[in-house]
Amino acid sequence: MTKEAYIIGVDGGGTRCRAQLEDMHGNILGQAESGSANIMTNAEQALRSIISASEEAVYRAGRPISLDQVYLGAGLAGANIPSAVKQFHSLPNPFKAVHVMSDLHSACLGAHNGSPGALVICGTGSAGTAYQNGEFFDRGGYGIAVGDNASGAWLGLEAIKYTLLAFDGVKEKSVLFFSVCAHFNLKTAAELTAQVKGFKGGDYGVLAPVVVDAFDKDCSIATALITKGASYLSTIAASLSDNYRLPLSLVGGLNGIYSPLLTEQVQSLLVAPKSSPQTGVIEYMKRKL
Amino acid sequence: MTKEAYIIGVDGGGTRCRAQLEDMHGNILGQAESGSANIMTNAEQALRSIISASEEAVYRAGRPISLDQVYLGAGLAGANIPSAVKQFHSLPNPFKAVHVMSDLHSACLGAHNGSPGALVICGTGSAGTAYQNGEFFDRGGYGIAVGDNASGAWLGLEAIKYTLLAFDGVKEKSVLFFSVCAHFNLKTAAELTAQVKGFKGGDYGVLAPVVVDAFDKDCSIATALITKGASYLSTIAASLSDNYRLPLSLVGGLNGIYSPLLTEQVQSLLVAPKSSPQTGVIEYMKRKL
Repeated sequence: MTKEAYIIGVDGGGTRCRAQLEDMHGNILGQAESGSANIMTNAEQALRSIISASEEAVYRAGRPISLDQVYLGAGLAGANIPSAVKQFHSLPNPFKAVHVMSDLHSACLGAHNGSPGALVICGTGSAGTAYQNGEFFDRGGYGIAVGDNASGAWLGLEAIKYTLLAFDGVKEKSVLFFSVCAHFNLKTAAELTAQVKGFKGGDYGVLAPVVVDAFDKDCSIATALITKGASYLSTIAASLSDNYRLPLSLVGGLNGIYSPLLTEQVQSLLVAPKSSPQTGVIEYMKRKL
Repeated sequence: MTKEAYIIGVDGGGTRCRAQLEDMHGNILGQAESGSANIMTNAEQALRSIISASEEAVYRAGRPISLDQVYLGAGLAGANIPSAVKQFHSLPNPFKAVHVMSDLHSACLGAHNGSPGALVICGTGSAGTAYQNGEFFDRGGYGIAVGDNASGAWLGLEAIKYTLLAFDGVKEKSVLFFSVCAHFNLKTAAELTAQVKGFKGGDYGVLAPVVVDAFDKDCSIATALITKGASYLSTIAASLSDNYRLPLSLVGGLNGIYSPLLTEQVQSLLVAPKSSPQTGVIEYMKRKL
């Protein structure tokens, strides 16, 4: 006699991981949350977080289910890096089977309930994908050192670069200049470079609200930056839309700022996400099983 | 009876350090070279390199001079960082007295024989300074993470950013795109991001000749990048020139590329450096003693 099978869908990011347990009929039996699950940063920790959230979801279901009855589908930060996926799969796990995809892909599947559609995320980082004919087509997501245009990290980094140029008289001093100086409590370029030494994406991203605030105050420099970011997002959204035919979800902390600045054609595609990444990856798993 | 005093001028950078020994009458008695002397990267190693080059210069002078008779003046990479200078001064040294300045300042003093003048350097990094009325006025030199516009590292980083955007269809594919792909022997954006992960200034700088080569082939993207770099250099050069009154030296590996692209007014200020940074710092020391 084969024991009944279940599916757990996981949405795992740099700070937390959410798990949703369903039976094969689509009934949600339990949900739970735990710590970070970025497999690029730490594959072992990611697996521990996933197991912990899965055990809690099973416990909340109130049924005698063991994880070896469970198909795990996980949309994880870092799963766009092949070496990270390989490392994750090399770890022993308690599940019946495991399928991993990038958190961008699971978010896109969730947003359109597994139907064809596109998703652009713009938070600390930025990236986009489209799902059509069973395949994903990606844009961006290269990290702040060489990309992530329009993202919070990008706004922060560009604001710092601009501030240093303004200290040198290469650019005019604007509202943004004085706001950045006030944010870091500094008066010289040397103080600024000392403070931002070793900054990574999230550190730069903390400055994004400073840029948005200057934009709200009609600062020409902040407006130029945000307009440039919106133009980038419009371009990748359009290129993912299959000639403006696919619905598009825009998610992440900065989308409220950018949405009204996208081209009219792109705005006409915008739809709110229909369901969560966890649900998206579960629906995808069901069709694969 | 006081023993005779001497001066050693040192020019110390990330890869090597040059020392020049003079008596107080301006006679060059000996010269020598040793390893790296960037006090930001490694103050102890910098001091070892300086002592080693100084001992060799004294040996070549063929006179019984000990380092406690020697005033050391050193223009050193990293000496624009106050904490690095403090760390360097905290180390015990064998000299009669030590004066440290940034290698940018010593290069400027050398270029104009200690007279008022400006200097812009554009190699792996970029920076500028002007010396007038006994004071230095600096521009740039903030490092590739947040600045160093026009530099070799900047050209390389911008070329990589552009190549990723071209992979995504955000920018057109040009000569530069195919040259960058050929340089790294790759076919996908993921292969490129994997190869450049953790790159620092010097790593990006290796790509500068690829950009220059595409520029020579009239690639519109490479031309736009180098034109933007030249515009930055013209702006800081003009701002250092005291209303186009000070002579200006342009030094570093990329200056042959940029010189013909500077504004006519800036080009009219250009002079070849008159002497070396070592000589520059020695002349400066003499006036201070």
